[in-house]
Amino acid sequence: MMKIDVLSLFPEMFSGVLGHSILKKAEEKNAVSYKVVNFREYADNKHKTVDDYPYGGGAGMVLKPQPIFDAITALTEQAGASKPRIILLCPQGERFSQRKAEELSKEEHLIFICGHYEGYDERIREHLVTDEISIGDYVLTGGELGAMVIIDSVVRLLPDVLGSEESHLHDSFSTGFLEHPHYTRPAEFRGLKVPDVLLSGDHKRIDEWRTKESLRRTYLRRSDLLDKIELSDEQKKMLAEIVKERE
Amino acid sequence: MMKIDVLSLFPEMFSGVLGHSILKKAEEKNAVSYKVVNFREYADNKHKTVDDYPYGGGAGMVLKPQPIFDAITALTEQAGASKPRIILLCPQGERFSQRKAEELSKEEHLIFICGHYEGYDERIREHLVTDEISIGDYVLTGGELGAMVIIDSVVRLLPDVLGSEESHLHDSFSTGFLEHPHYTRPAEFRGLKVPDVLLSGDHKRIDEWRTKESLRRTYLRRSDLLDKIELSDEQKKMLAEIVKERE
Repeated sequence: MMKIDVLSLFPEMFSGVLGHSILKKAEEKNAVSYKVVNFREYADNKHKTVDDYPYGGGAGMVLKPQPIFDAITALTEQAGASKPRIILLCPQGERFSQRKAEELSKEEHLIFICGHYEGYDERIREHLVTDEISIGDYVLTGGELGAMVIIDSVVRLLPDVLGSEESHLHDSFSTGFLEHPHYTRPAEFRGLKVPDVLLSGDHKRIDEWRTKESLRRTYLRRSDLLDKIELSDEQKKMLAEIVKERE
Repeated sequence: MMKIDVLSLFPEMFSGVLGHSILKKAEEKNAVSYKVVNFREYADNKHKTVDDYPYGGGAGMVLKPQPIFDAITALTEQAGASKPRIILLCPQGERFSQRKAEELSKEEHLIFICGHYEGYDERIREHLVTDEISIGDYVLTGGELGAMVIIDSVVRLLPDVLGSEESHLHDSFSTGFLEHPHYTRPAEFRGLKVPDVLLSGDHKRIDEWRTKESLRRTYLRRSDLLDKIELSDEQKKMLAEIVKERE
C-alpha cells in the first residue's frame, strides 16, 4: 500500500478532494493511505511560528527550516523502512508530466510539502527535498492544489484503483494523440447532428474516422505531439489528406 | 463582483478549496461569488441520467448534451446581462498559462464544466463552450481539480484580494525569472549556514547576489524562459559569469 503524507498549514483544504471519487475509493480498497499534517504542530517555539522575515530584507515571509525538518523526520519514522520521495511544490520546480506521475506511482511513500504564499528557506530545498515540482507556468496561492493534482494523477495509476468504466477515455497522453470526438444520444439535439458514419454500424469506417479525427485534432491543436510519434503509413496518408483539406 | 459557477457531478469536492484561505477571503470581501452546481439536477429524464454509450461503439461513457446545455442556460439567465466565458476542462484544450489567468480575471462571469472520466459529447464543445483548457500534460480523474487551479490563479488577481503579505514572493512568472533563494533565521541550522552576504547589511551587494542567483536558477532550470526576456548589460555580464563558474 502506498503511503501519502502532506504537510500543509491548511489541512482542511484537502478533505473535499481526498474524501470523494477515485481518491476515496482507492483508500477504501487499501491501495493508498493519506495523512494530512499541519506542520505548525512541529514548531518548537512557544508561539508555534512557522515563518520569519527573510535575511537580507525584502517583503514577504519565509518558511523556517525547523518545523518542516522535524515533521519529515517524524513521518519518515512512522512509515518504517521505506525511503520517502519528498516533494516540494514550487514554481521553480520541474514541470509535472504523465511520465513523472508514472515514476512516482512506483514508490511506497510520498511526502508533499505545501507552502502557502511564503517562500521556503533554501536549506529545505537543498538538504531535505528529493523532487521540486511545478504543475504548470501559472501562479497559485499555495502548493496545496499542486499536491492534490499530483496525488490524483498518481493514485489513479495504482493497481486495481480504476474500474473498467473509468480507465477508458481521457487517455490522450497515453496514446500520444489527442482523442477523437465522442457523441452519444440523441442523434439530433437542437438541430445539431451526429456524423452519419457513427450511426452506420460499419466498424471499419468508424475506426478509420476515429483515427483520422484523432490525428486532425492533434495536428490542429498540438502539432508538437506529432513530432514525438512514429506515424504508420496509413496515418501519414491521413495526415496528408487533413493538411490538404485545410487548404 | 465576479461570478464563478461550476458544473460538476461531485460538488462536494470543492468545499475544502473554496472554503479556505484566499478563495474564501475573496468571497468575504465580495470580490467573487461561487456556485457549484450538480448538473444531474438538470437532466430531463426520469432517472436523471447524464451520460450514455458512445455512438459507433467502444468503451467508456459520454456526457449527454441536454443536462449541460440546460444548466448553462439557467446559470446564464441567473447572472443577468453578462455574457459568460464557458470553460471546458479537458486534456485536448489550450495549455493554461499566467497570461490566460490574467485574461480571465477581467471577465464578469466564468462557468466551468467538469467532466469526470466520461467523454463530452462533441456538440458541447462545438456549440456551447468558449474555451477548452488543460492545466498540463498529465491525466487527471476529472475536470474538478483543473477548475480549482484556474479559479485560484484567477481570483488572486482580482483587485484587493491579496494582502501585502500574500502578494510578494511566488512571482516567478511575473518577472520572467525564477526566484532567487530565500533564507530566514536561524543563521545556522544543523550545521547548514545562510550565505554571508545576506547577513552583511550591504544592500547593494544583497541586491546583486539576488539578481545573480535568480538568473542562475533560471539558467540551470528553465533556460527556455531566458529566450523570452531582454537582458540588461549587467544581467548579461552576470550570466556570462554563471556559465563560466560551471565550467
